[in-house]
Amino acid sequence: MSKIDFSKVLVAQGGGPTAVINQSLVGAVLESRKFREVERVYGAFHGVRGVVNEEFADLTQETTHNLELVAGTPSSALGSTRDKPDLKYCQEIFKVLQAHKIGCFFYIGGNDSSDTVRIVSQEAKAHGYPLRAVHIPKTIDNDLTVNDHTPGFPSAARFVAQAFAGANLDNWALPGVYIGVVMGRHAGFLTAASALGKKFPDDGPHLIYIPERPFVVEKFLADVKATMDRLGRCVIAVSEGVCDENHTPIAEKLAKQVERDDHGNVHLGGGALADNLTDLIKEKLGFKRVRADTFGYLQRSFVGCVSDVDQREAREVGEKAVQYAIWGDRDGTVTIHRTGFYSVDYRLTPLEEVAAKTRTMPDEFISPCGSDVTDAFRYYLRPLLGSGMPDAYRLRLARVPKILKGQG
Amino acid sequence: MSKIDFSKVLVAQGGGPTAVINQSLVGAVLESRKFREVERVYGAFHGVRGVVNEEFADLTQETTHNLELVAGTPSSALGSTRDKPDLKYCQEIFKVLQAHKIGCFFYIGGNDSSDTVRIVSQEAKAHGYPLRAVHIPKTIDNDLTVNDHTPGFPSAARFVAQAFAGANLDNWALPGVYIGVVMGRHAGFLTAASALGKKFPDDGPHLIYIPERPFVVEKFLADVKATMDRLGRCVIAVSEGVCDENHTPIAEKLAKQVERDDHGNVHLGGGALADNLTDLIKEKLGFKRVRADTFGYLQRSFVGCVSDVDQREAREVGEKAVQYAIWGDRDGTVTIHRTGFYSVDYRLTPLEEVAAKTRTMPDEFISPCGSDVTDAFRYYLRPLLGSGMPDAYRLRLARVPKILKGQG
Repeated sequence: MSKIDFSKVLVAQGGGPTAVINQSLVGAVLESRKFREVERVYGAFHGVRGVVNEEFADLTQETTHNLELVAGTPSSALGSTRDKPDLKYCQEIFKVLQAHKIGCFFYIGGNDSSDTVRIVSQEAKAHGYPLRAVHIPKTIDNDLTVNDHTPGFPSAARFVAQAFAGANLDNWALPGVYIGVVMGRHAGFLTAASALGKKFPDDGPHLIYIPERPFVVEKFLADVKATMDRLGRCVIAVSEGVCDENHTPIAEKLAKQVERDDHGNVHLGGGALADNLTDLIKEKLGFKRVRADTFGYLQRSFVGCVSDVDQREAREVGEKAVQYAIWGDRDGTVTIHRTGFYSVDYRLTPLEEVAAKTRTMPDEFISPCGSDVTDAFRYYLRPLLGSGMPDAYRLRLARVPKILKGQG
Repeated sequence: MSKIDFSKVLVAQGGGPTAVINQSLVGAVLESRKFREVERVYGAFHGVRGVVNEEFADLTQETTHNLELVAGTPSSALGSTRDKPDLKYCQEIFKVLQAHKIGCFFYIGGNDSSDTVRIVSQEAKAHGYPLRAVHIPKTIDNDLTVNDHTPGFPSAARFVAQAFAGANLDNWALPGVYIGVVMGRHAGFLTAASALGKKFPDDGPHLIYIPERPFVVEKFLADVKATMDRLGRCVIAVSEGVCDENHTPIAEKLAKQVERDDHGNVHLGGGALADNLTDLIKEKLGFKRVRADTFGYLQRSFVGCVSDVDQREAREVGEKAVQYAIWGDRDGTVTIHRTGFYSVDYRLTPLEEVAAKTRTMPDEFISPCGSDVTDAFRYYLRPLLGSGMPDAYRLRLARVPKILKGQG
């Protein structure tokens, strides 16, 4: 295989947007522009779909100043796609890379995107085309293997923690049952992040249900009742992907219509799970004030809730990808490894170790009861949330003796 | 009537919590504590319910430092209630005030709460009991008459604007139809605030539906189709309280079960409206990617999204209430009046002018098409959102000529 020609570099963004995905984009673009080998940095519109359609922007013509402002803007600045390329699709990608003499391909995305990079990398090798292909990690689900955590997750986790901190205060003021449904099809990390909104011992969420443990309706109802009996209120965090003992998603079980995306995944959005759980509690337990929210797109796209640690790391994985590509000798995926409390380092990991694999929450992060997290999880997550986390304070209520009711 | 004895002052919080309701509480408490006439400042737990149950905390025993921290914490620190007292209930309130020799009663809340203050005030007069009763405004709905705006609304509006700014970016990256359902039973102010998340001319929300205009399903579908045809994507803001031409709430029309609260109001929460509108678009227009979120409790309780202007004003209405009570000669409600761009002043307004009345959006704030806001509304709302609003930036995409597809 001849030497790689780095004069044209391509970067694209795939999958669900995150609060910091543009940090990775800008990290890759600015770092590429530092290398004299690189003449042009292209960006593909809407991920791999833009690649096969040859829809490229010349990011070499962007000002550094605007790139820095875009880096701080959430969601995918190049646009994204839900396409999950098969071999034929990847062959199309490869043809376009070849036609445009692209020597280096960076794809920012989750496990599906890393699989795309893996297939394109193989395709290039099979054709003897000198290509360097590097995957840059991103997913709010935090479900990439090898990585300690993935860029995008800390900011989404921060949103969830702050949302539950507020929901808990609201529920304290107007007691009842509150359910917050959080994104997470197979991995419960984001739902578990709700626990970081707790401060005082009786704070919610009092119950946390994640896909890693079977969701048993009877146990759920017993948990809610026990919490209501104890505190007169109950705040619940539930993953949209919770399943029963037979691995049937509760959302699918209760939903009337089932919608599937191009990956064959059932669409778990909408408020159905929240509303059905609400009805269940009202019917079976008789509590009147039961409220439920589905956090939906807010948790991944809300402008103005971001972890500075996440921003920094998302920027660095973009930069490191370029360094590994140009100074290194192999394709791969940039992975994040924790080295201290709190520090990280980056490595280039073979694509096969991450591609199309899903990581779920380890047992040590889940309480034996199955509906709470451990201190090990808090220790894991807290530094990722970054600086300036809001804090909640309470009145220390000194009771005044009753007069009419005659109590002391 | 004898002279008012200010030695015991009572403050309570009613209705839905807001991001800044504790600023008003702390403003009233700290200002009361400055007056040498005041010996004890009581707080009632859970609003008027705590009053009738004689559940009081002695806030004179709170440290100033902790009060300041509580002021910055969202939701009602004393707890709240949905009780809407009738005459009998108000007589109970009055009996307790009398028994505890309370000379001054401050109630922080919306139009229902101001009506409670009005009835209690009349009851005291009828009994010749020297009481000073002052209502302190609060509501995210912004629906109090006389006021330019109400504390709590600016912070909730900021959340909605930021949420739509993010949803718009997400929808740009992964095009389709996005619906965000916003709180607002009769007044569309909070839903209209979504317009403040727009920056570029093609930004969403592209369509805004508020209760002040009839929601006609056919027009809605035509609006969505026209936007999709024009931009290939569509972001929609809808008030939970939108009604058809016969004033039937669309949520009630489409919902299977109807839940009413103690005020006889239909509960509009849950994801039903969002999901039903989603189904409508899919069925009638055939668009596949239609997503909807109900912002629910996040918009009023999210920790970490607050307007500094709102904080300041909420604090001041609490302080002014005490000054009007002690230095003034009548009961009333503190009202906010705009005096410049941007400055406000406060007045004590007769309770009858605000109590149990509802203000909706004036025509000058609504576009003639009925599904957008005017610049007059933007001019009205922008200063309320406060400093440090996040801003979104875009790449200026310089297209690269196609090679395989042979286009220039």
